[in-house]
Amino acid sequence: MKIRSVKSSDYYAISPLINEWWGGRQMSDMLPKLFFDHFNNTSFIAEEDGHIIGFLIEFLSQSNSDVAYIHFVGVNPVYRKNHIGKQLYNNFFNVIRENNRKVVRAVTSPVNKVSIAYHTKMGFSIENGDIEIDGVPVVSNYDGPNKDRVLFVKNVD
Amino acid sequence: MKIRSVKSSDYYAISPLINEWWGGRQMSDMLPKLFFDHFNNTSFIAEEDGHIIGFLIEFLSQSNSDVAYIHFVGVNPVYRKNHIGKQLYNNFFNVIRENNRKVVRAVTSPVNKVSIAYHTKMGFSIENGDIEIDGVPVVSNYDGPNKDRVLFVKNVD
Repeated sequence: MKIRSVKSSDYYAISPLINEWWGGRQMSDMLPKLFFDHFNNTSFIAEEDGHIIGFLIEFLSQSNSDVAYIHFVGVNPVYRKNHIGKQLYNNFFNVIRENNRKVVRAVTSPVNKVSIAYHTKMGFSIENGDIEIDGVPVVSNYDGPNKDRVLFVKNVD
Repeated sequence: MKIRSVKSSDYYAISPLINEWWGGRQMSDMLPKLFFDHFNNTSFIAEEDGHIIGFLIEFLSQSNSDVAYIHFVGVNPVYRKNHIGKQLYNNFFNVIRENNRKVVRAVTSPVNKVSIAYHTKMGFSIENGDIEIDGVPVVSNYDGPNKDRVLFVKNVD
């Protein structure tokens, strides 16, 4: 497996995969092409035999110089349990240390139990919410009406 | 009218307005809260009597140090023709000059004739496309299947 930086043209390979990898949820609209054009230097692709099997799209907050934000991270379900996510995260943590970022943030939907379990395992804390779903603190309507979100935060050493 | 920087909490005032201001098109999903959290210093709000009547959400490309990108610009239809967009753009052009950006990019849908006319009037050029719609060059499937886009570019003096 090879990890490399994202290129603009990767958008056209990744976008059609997203809804499939997210178990049929309509997710691709949340990752428009601009993320592949303007955040290449903090975003990574995992490839095996020339096929994309995972990706991580992340950026450095422009207005909060301590913070980095993970927008999307996905691994082909067939390749899960192979530490691909972990290797993508390692590349990303190297980049944020180089850029002196102290805090990493990410959000996910309460239905995304895989993401909640994964971020918790990776040492992220969950921020306080106004409601609780299946024992997880959730901020209701965070990303608009009926778009509840779980908010993750991790301090970087 | 007052122009000020965007705050995170503006998201909850602006998001419900977007579909209305865009003539009923489903647009609010394209502007998640992250843009109000991490790009405050290049994004602006126009207010009148404490009400938001326009906004511009923009960021500096992180991987292309010459480029700034306009993600969203909207003015309450009731207040159009009052040069609100122009004042928002002026604030934004000041910021990009301060940050030594030479090129501004933006994309829009071919159906958004107001946006095409406005960007053209503001001195943006339209990049070559693979198709043409109503005489305008368009890149087909630019933002995914059936999501054709008009690509604007403007060099900043």
